[in-house]
Order: sequence, then structure tokens, then C-alpha cells
Amino acid sequence: MSEAAQTLDGWYSLHDFRTMDWTLWKSVSSDERQAAIHEYLGMLEKWNVTQSNEQGSHALYSIVGQKADFMMMILRPTMEELNEIENEFNKSKLAEFTIPVHSYVSVVELSNYLPAGEDPYQNPQVLARLYPILPKAKYVCFYPMDKRRQGNDNWYMLPMEDRRGMMRSHGMIGRQYAGKVKQVITGSVGFDDYEWGVTLFSDDVLQFKKLVYEMRFDEVSARFGEFGAFFVGNLLEEDKISKFLHV
Amino acid sequence: MSEAAQTLDGWYSLHDFRTMDWTLWKSVSSDERQAAIHEYLGMLEKWNVTQSNEQGSHALYSIVGQKADFMMMILRPTMEELNEIENEFNKSKLAEFTIPVHSYVSVVELSNYLPAGEDPYQNPQVLARLYPILPKAKYVCFYPMDKRRQGNDNWYMLPMEDRRGMMRSHGMIGRQYAGKVKQVITGSVGFDDYEWGVTLFSDDVLQFKKLVYEMRFDEVSARFGEFGAFFVGNLLEEDKISKFLHV
Amino acid sequence: MSEAAQTLDGWYSLHDFRTMDWTLWKSVSSDERQAAIHEYLGMLEKWNVTQSNEQGSHALYSIVGQKADFMMMILRPTMEELNEIENEFNKSKLAEFTIPVHSYVSVVELSNYLPAGEDPYQNPQVLARLYPILPKAKYVCFYPMDKRRQGNDNWYMLPMEDRRGMMRSHGMIGRQYAGKVKQVITGSVGFDDYEWGVTLFSDDVLQFKKLVYEMRFDEVSARFGEFGAFFVGNLLEEDKISKFLHV
Amino acid sequence: MSEAAQTLDGWYSLHDFRTMDWTLWKSVSSDERQAAIHEYLGMLEKWNVTQSNEQGSHALYSIVGQKADFMMMILRPTMEELNEIENEFNKSKLAEFTIPVHSYVSVVELSNYLPAGEDPYQNPQVLARLYPILPKAKYVCFYPMDKRRQGNDNWYMLPMEDRRGMMRSHGMIGRQYAGKVKQVITGSVGFDDYEWGVTLFSDDVLQFKKLVYEMRFDEVSARFGEFGAFFVGNLLEEDKISKFLHV
Amino acid sequence: MSEAAQTLDGWYSLHDFRTMDWTLWKSVSSDERQAAIHEYLGMLEKWNVTQSNEQGSHALYSIVGQKADFMMMILRPTMEELNEIENEFNKSKLAEFTIPVHSYVSVVELSNYLPAGEDPYQNPQVLARLYPILPKAKYVCFYPMDKRRQGNDNWYMLPMEDRRGMMRSHGMIGRQYAGKVKQVITGSVGFDDYEWGVTLFSDDVLQFKKLVYEMRFDEVSARFGEFGAFFVGNLLEEDKISKFLHV
Repeated sequence: MSEAAQTLDGWYSLHDFRTMDWTLWKSVSSDERQAAIHEYLGMLEKWNVTQSNEQGSHALYSIVGQKADFMMMILRPTMEELNEIENEFNKSKLAEFTIPVHSYVSVVELSNYLPAGEDPYQNPQVLARLYPILPKAKYVCFYPMDKRRQGNDNWYMLPMEDRRGMMRSHGMIGRQYAGKVKQVITGSVGFDDYEWGVTLFSDDVLQFKKLVYEMRFDEVSARFGEFGAFFVGNLLEEDKISKFLHV
Repeated sequence: MSEAAQTLDGWYSLHDFRTMDWTLWKSVSSDERQAAIHEYLGMLEKWNVTQSNEQGSHALYSIVGQKADFMMMILRPTMEELNEIENEFNKSKLAEFTIPVHSYVSVVELSNYLPAGEDPYQNPQVLARLYPILPKAKYVCFYPMDKRRQGNDNWYMLPMEDRRGMMRSHGMIGRQYAGKVKQVITGSVGFDDYEWGVTLFSDDVLQFKKLVYEMRFDEVSARFGEFGAFFVGNLLEEDKISKFLHV
Repeated sequence: MSEAAQTLDGWYSLHDFRTMDWTLWKSVSSDERQAAIHEYLGMLEKWNVTQSNEQGSHALYSIVGQKADFMMMILRPTMEELNEIENEFNKSKLAEFTIPVHSYVSVVELSNYLPAGEDPYQNPQVLARLYPILPKAKYVCFYPMDKRRQGNDNWYMLPMEDRRGMMRSHGMIGRQYAGKVKQVITGSVGFDDYEWGVTLFSDDVLQFKKLVYEMRFDEVSARFGEFGAFFVGNLLEEDKISKFLHV
Repeated sequence: MSEAAQTLDGWYSLHDFRTMDWTLWKSVSSDERQAAIHEYLGMLEKWNVTQSNEQGSHALYSIVGQKADFMMMILRPTMEELNEIENEFNKSKLAEFTIPVHSYVSVVELSNYLPAGEDPYQNPQVLARLYPILPKAKYVCFYPMDKRRQGNDNWYMLPMEDRRGMMRSHGMIGRQYAGKVKQVITGSVGFDDYEWGVTLFSDDVLQFKKLVYEMRFDEVSARFGEFGAFFVGNLLEEDKISKFLHV
Repeated sequence: MSEAAQTLDGWYSLHDFRTMDWTLWKSVSSDERQAAIHEYLGMLEKWNVTQSNEQGSHALYSIVGQKADFMMMILRPTMEELNEIENEFNKSKLAEFTIPVHSYVSVVELSNYLPAGEDPYQNPQVLARLYPILPKAKYVCFYPMDKRRQGNDNWYMLPMEDRRGMMRSHGMIGRQYAGKVKQVITGSVGFDDYEWGVTLFSDDVLQFKKLVYEMRFDEVSARFGEFGAFFVGNLLEEDKISKFLHV
């Protein structure tokens, strides 16, 4: 048997970051803008139906700083559905006024560093985590990460036992934030440039900093974590979209 | 004799990734779009004839996420033919609506870490792998890679015996995925920025993640693998192109 | 208890760097330019009121070199306010003539490598540093930084005692510059790509070089500092904006 | 005397990579395109005269993949001439339809890891290599490289004797390819971002891969080589230019 | 006292690299081009007056290769003056036809690894080097650099004595080039992304390569030098500007 930990995999995930071309947006008529917003709200309505049917989930956040104006996170059972949603958005009126700035393709994943014997796919808690309905938390934080393979700090050369021990202590930090921060871990090995995506949700944005900072002292992160770009955002509720786009 | 493993080389390969300029595409008349699609289908038809004649092969996939909208992978007996196809596409009507975002130039390659004595070019299985007809698998995964040359983790300073042993165990992981994932390895030393391109085909997209993740624990990848950007996509069959481009 | 030093956190911070599209700016009528300036001065006026009410602070500097033409640094009690200010600016007339080139999202932070026993949030000096009114110093310097995690130079693997000792000696260098350089440290773990932002204010621009250079010999920076891009600028007072934008 | 090997230096070299803006090219009249081609062929004619007079040399290749559409390599006795040629091209009609994507500035160089005693500048073979007429080989390969200075793998800290020994064995690999691959080494220390440019010419494109791959196992490359981007191309003969540019 | 060597600081420096938009430049009338050149020559005339008054200096070079078309290097007593010159240029007619591609902000600096006891600011030779009139040399070379802080090769962790010894031997190489290459070292710690800028002037462009290459074997560079992009250029005399810009 391989030294690779088995993973449990749920819905496929697309993080799609966009910047508005505000000058172009202002240059068209109010009617044209309304039509674009109307069409986009129609897409969101379809996504809401999908979510109600537990066939996927999505989240919409405005991003702070120049990296992006907003982020859509979409979960679906297949890669084809992600591709269709992306293409439908790209063909929409609103998309004409957006500039794609970043995206991330992954799949909801649970590391199976768990005791053997149980079929995790029969566990309702596991299923709820593999097929999550994304919370309407006030804030979101997203970043991708790798496990380091560098000189003596090579995660993938460690015995599984050591990895399991470190992941357990790592998980314990996460658990201290239970109720404060919801973590959605998505695996992206073979799908995108990092090995994992981490999406955090909280009603207290400072908890992101506390959690990530505390974890950085944990050996798993301190010695083995390689982090990509960080994005932080505020919940963009559907009834705030018109205000967000109002010019 | 050199410490370099001999390689067997087959067809030259071009991976060509493109993003649609959807706004421009929507701005022209339906007739103009039809003409562009018609011309492109004509090019594909020519490629199909070449493939039927076993003078090359090609694959067309839509890419998930913002890295690209679609990828064409083209195999041909000469670099000149790749260049001609690329130039023909660049001069086509459809190309006016695409933005080139990434490409990769390589040649189908088999590592010859095999026992001596046999002329591999007489082996039909070897020939089938050097001149492959690309499968119509539902999913594709592409990434380039290097063997690391860093401090104590320097692949190219290892004795050939050690390299051969590690490659054999590496290959055994790949073989466990036989029937699930088809791997096309292309060499790009002297042709492009990494040393190899890896193109995986499967009807189960999750197998890419499982395969690449499991290999990452293998010493060849764990200590010596350096990976570039990963692309994942869905099969774009010819009769779906009009739908894909419909706006 | 965790090995992570506790931090004290104050106002959220947005550094927003912009370049003027001077050609476009010159191409519109003087009236249109005046309207854009007028609207922008109105925004600054609102920010001044907020600052008078001690509900935030801001600073405006012209940046030397091609990295940016000007920088706005905005402090506010919530991420939502930063996002609103950013969106209001983006929708403004002046923004049509600017190109966003860099931004940084963080929160004013004091490292709590202090003796225990006191409630720092009751300390007026601490509060003045967490909710600072940014000085009208002649010069600004901004750069982001990380603590290194590399081989034997891994800050996050050091015992807290060692880190505290090094930070104390590091702070002593800073204190030698008291009265010459005001330092505003902002934490960005979980918010942006580096772990901290450093914003320095001085009436003698050479003090930035002296301070940063002297610190570089300090073990904290020498062994553990990883620095991002550096920006240096001149104070852009409100009554100089019209001149700055005059064409 | 310094530990630096003496070098012999010949003609200055400019590699200039361009991509066509095909859409713009197609948008102008056939007459305008003919005029642009005619003007360009006139420049090439001047370069041919220079080459006949042994006052320089040049090569023109179409590049495979999206990195560039074509490359001009120009050799001249002075930096001023390179600059003039570059400016003349930039001001030409054809240049309006090209996008500059990469360039490299260097000087033809021979490493003088040779036995002392001879004046190399009196040696006709040396002169032929310092002032080469570039061959009309079917294929070209270009890449820049550095000698590594990293931890224990620091080329510039080695005794000259060790460097000379390794370079000799390195050169022997190159010599095995005599008749198959012509190598033009250009030095770029102080001129461009890497220390050397390597331009290979061959009538068998696979020889580039074999040569570079075999050298990678040689200690000079394995431990000390740092490589930049690789470009591969097909000969673009003057009488093929019209066809190449035909739309 | 700190382990940091004291530095002597003179004029502030801006290197400003620009590329021409030749297509746009050609598209306007000859009168418009003449007006732009005339205005630019007027700016240069003002700079000449400043230089005559020993209140600053400047140099103008055309750059070889695609990195830039020309570089302006400006020395002034204050950061404000650099910013004003930059803004004046940005608002000029000529600037409408240029694309800013790189800049560097620094201050003329002498390392004070000298015996104590003398007040260097009373030394006329020191003053001449801190406030230099830039020579009209035929060639320029610019590159930024850092002192490495990596594992065992950490410049800032060395005792000052060791650093002084290495700098002395380093300086001796430079002195061998006295009369052949003039070096202007500018410090940029706290001002720009590297720690130093190096600007070399010579009437023999090959001396740049010889000097930089020879220094690379010196321990200071071999073990501790990290180099950024290199730019090389030809003197652009004022009476050649019209020719340079003639289309």
C-alpha cells in the first residue's frame, strides 16, 4: 500500500475572481446595466435552486484591495458543470464588464488521517463536509498551499506516522476555532498549481489572522507550508449586488 | 558512454492553450461567427484525415478555470508541420477572437530505462506509444515538470543505477492506473522551459488527483520532481464546438 | 498555550497605489478634469471628518519612480469600510484616469512580546498606536515582509523565548529612531501575501535608508527577514493635489 | 592575476523575438502588406551585403509555440550597429504589426580555458568562431544560462583548475555533436540577465534535445547550470517570408 | 555601535527606462512630433542649466534590446525634485508616445569601509563622488544588486571585519579598471527593491563584461551577490535625439 494518505473527495470547486471595468460599466446606459444585473441575478437564482436541491452550493464575496472586485465560489458534482457555469458567466452581459484575474480549480477533500475500520462515506458528518452548503458568513479568506519538498523539510519523504501525528496536532488548532471559523479544504493536486485550496468563513475577520498565524507556528506549517496569494472579502448578499454595481 | 539514459522519440507535440475574447465574439454578426466556426471545423477535418492516415493525432479540450478556454494538443512527425498548423490557426478567422495564453513544445518520449538487447523501435507496443492516437477520454490533465538539481537532491548527479531503480518503482505506480489513466510523456529538453510534459487522459477526473498525489510520495517526485502549472479540462467533441461557441 | 505571540490589533488598513493615465487625462476638457478633482477633494473631505472624529485616518503621498504615481493609505475600524471607500473611489471620475498597480490589506498590529500582567488595551499609549492618526510627514516608505521559514533559518520553529529576545533587540534599533521615523506595523497574515506591512513616516527621507539598513544587520532581519517591493514617496498635501494633477 | 578565465570576444549579438499581430495584419490592404514585406526584404538585403562583406551575420527563424512567431539573430562589430538595426526595424512598416516579446544582448565568446602560449587572435579557427557566418541550418535552439552560485554548488568559488577540468569534459560532449550541431556561445555578463546565451543550429531538431539532455548529466550542468527560457524554431528562408506572412 | 557600515550619501537618483510606441509616434503629424521633441529638448536644456550650476546631473542613453528604448538617469539633491522631473516628463507631449518599463530610485552612496579619523565630507574627492557630474561616456551599464542572506552565505551575519576585508579586495578589482570604467554606486535600501544600483560608464563596452565577470569570482560577488536585470546602452547625445526619433 502506498504511503499516500487516502483522501475523501466531494464536490468539485471553482473559485472565480473578477475585477470590474468600472469605466466601461459607467459608459453604457442605465438600461444596459440593469439588463446585465437582471441576467446575472437570474443565474444566481438558478444556482440557488441547485443549492436548495443539494446539488451544489455557491458563495459570493466582494474582495478587499486591488486583487479583485468580487469572487464567486462554486461547488458542483462534476467538472463539466463547473465548466458550463463558467462558460455561461463568460457569455453573459455582465462578464463584458469584468476582467478575469484569478481562478482556482479543486475538489472538496477530507484528509483521511483517521483511524481505520469505519466507512467514512456512511458518516453523515463526513458527507456534510464533503458536500457542504457554504455559509453566509460575513467574511471569507482564500489561499492555496503546498506541502514543502525542500532539503530536510520534505513532507513527502516523511513516514506516514509522522505526517499523521503532525496533522492531528494541526487539526487541533483548527478545532479551537470551531464555531468561529468554518474551514473548507479543497484538494487540487492534478487540477491547479498548488496542492490545496483553503477557504475560511467567519463573522469575525480577525479570526482569519489569528488562525493562520497560530497555525504558522505549528510544525506542519512552519516547516512544511508553502502559501500562495491570500484573498480576503466581505459577504456580497444578493440584495446588495445592485448597490455594489450602482454607478 | 554517457550517464544519460537513452530516450526513444516519436511524434513532435504542440499544446496550444487559448482564451476566447467573448465580448469581441459577441460583437460580430452571427454570419461572421458561423463562418469562423465553419473554417475551424474544416481545419479539424484535415487533422482527422491526417489522424486516419496515422500521420499524426490531435485532441481538443475545454479548460476549467480562467487559465484558458480550450486546449489543442497536436502531434506530428516534424516541427515544421507543428509550425504550419499553428500559423494556419493563427491566420484563421476564429483566431481573431482568441488570446494565446500558453503553449508547450515537446516530443513524445519513452525513457529507455529498460534492459538492453532488444531494438525497441521494432516493438509494436513501443511504436504505438511513440506514435499514439490520442484517446477521446472525457478529461485531460497537462503539466510540465523538471527533475530537480538542488543541493543533495540532484537527480542528474545520481548514478544511473539509482535513477533506473527509482524510475522502475515510479513506473509501477503508473501501471496501477492502467485502464484508468492513459499517460503521454513528452520530452522538452532543448525545446521548452521544462524537461518534460505530462498529458493524462481519463474518463474519471478524480484519477488524475489520485495518481499525481500518490506519485508525489514516490522518491522520484518527492525529492526530485519540480512541477509547473497544471491544466485540467473536459473533452470538447467536434459536434459540441458550435454549442461551446454559441452566444 | 500556543507558541504564537499574541498580537494586539487596531484599525484595518488599505494601501492603494495608482498610476495616472496622463494621456487620457490630458485628452479630456479642463472642465471634466476640474469636476474629477472636485469630486475627489470631496471624498478627502469626508475622510478628514472621519479622522477628526477619530474613526479612522488616511495619508496621501506621491510615489517616486514608475511603480505608482500616488498612494492612499486608509485606516478604518472595519473591512467593510475599507471596501466601501475602495469601491467609492473606483466609481469616481478620477479613477477613470488611474490604473491600479498595487494594494495591501492589513490591520494595525502591535506584537505583544511584552511582560505579562498588564491589560494592554487599557494603556493609552497602546491605544494611540493601534488607532493612529497618520502624521503629515514629508516622506513615506512602505514595504511588506515575511519572517523566513527556510532550512535552519526558520523563525516559526524557534522557541518563543529566542524570538522575544531578538524582537527586543530589534525594537531597540527602532527606538533609536524615535522622533526621526514613525513606524506603523500592520499585520496581514490571512489578509494579503506577506505577513506584515511596514509603513514608515519621516521628515528626512534618508532616515528610511539608515533605519532599514541598520536593521538588516540585526539577526531578526539578517537571518529571518524576507522583503517585498519597496515604495518611497513625498507628502501630497490636499492643497497640492490640483497642482499635481495640473496638465 | 584574477581567478576569472580570460575570454575571447567577437561580434556583438542581438536575438530579437517577435509575435505577429495577425488580426491587425489581416485588417490592412494587400498593398499595405506588400509594401511592409518589400521594405523588410530590403532590410534583409542590406544585412546580406553586410554578411557578404564579413562585417556581420544574421539568421531568421520561425519559432514554434506561442512564445514568438519569429526570431532575428543579428551579429555586428559594435553595440551601436545592433542598436541602429533594432531602431530601423522598430520604425519599419512591418514592425507596426509585431509585438516584441523577448530579446537578448550578448557578444560571441570563446572561453579561454586553453593552454597558454598561443595568441588565440592569430588563430584562423578561433577567428572563424568569433566572427561566424551563421549557418542556414533547418533548426535553431536558443536559451540563456548562468553558472550557479548556491550553497555548495558555487561555480565562482571553485579553483580555476577544477573549473577548467569540468569545462574540458563538458566541451568533449559538445565535440561528439560536431557536424550535427553548431554551437554559438555568446557572453552576456554586464549586458543581459543571464551570463551566457547558447544558440544551437542543426538540420536534425532532435539533436538539440540529445545534446542538452546529455550535457545535463555532466557535472558543469548538473550541479552548476541554471537555465532560462528555451526557444526552438524552423529556418525561415527569405523566399519563404512572403508565404509565412501571407494571409 | 551598530554592525552596519556607515554610508556617505549624496544626490538622489532616478533611473527611468522608456520604450517608444513607434506606431503611435508615426501616426501623428510631423509638426506634432517636432513639437514634442522641441518641448523635450527644452526640458533637457533646463537640466543642463541645473548641471552647470552643480545642482544635479543627468545622462541619456539608448538601450540595446527590447527592455527599453532609452534611459534617463537623473541626480538631484532631493526626492521632491526627482518626483517633479518625473511628473513634468509624464505630462509632456513626448511621454504620450512612451511606455514606462522600468525605474530605479536610489541615492549616490559611498561605503564607509574606510579607516576612521577623517571627516569624509571635508574630502573634495569624496564630495566629487557623492555629487558627480555624469560622464558623456559612449556606453552605460545598469543593474541592481543585493547582498545575499541565504543559509551559510549571509552577508549581514558576518563580522564587520570580514565584510571590510572582502570589500577592500572587491574595491581593488574596481580600481584596476580606473580610467576604463567609471562606477556610480547608489544605495536603495528603503527606496527600491534591491539594496544597491550600479551604474557603469565606459568608452569600451567590453569593459563592462570584463569588470562584472572578474568581480563575479571575487568572494563578495561569488558568495554574496544577487543581481537583478542588466541594461546596456549607447550614449544618446542631445544632437542625436532628433535622429533617434526621426521616422
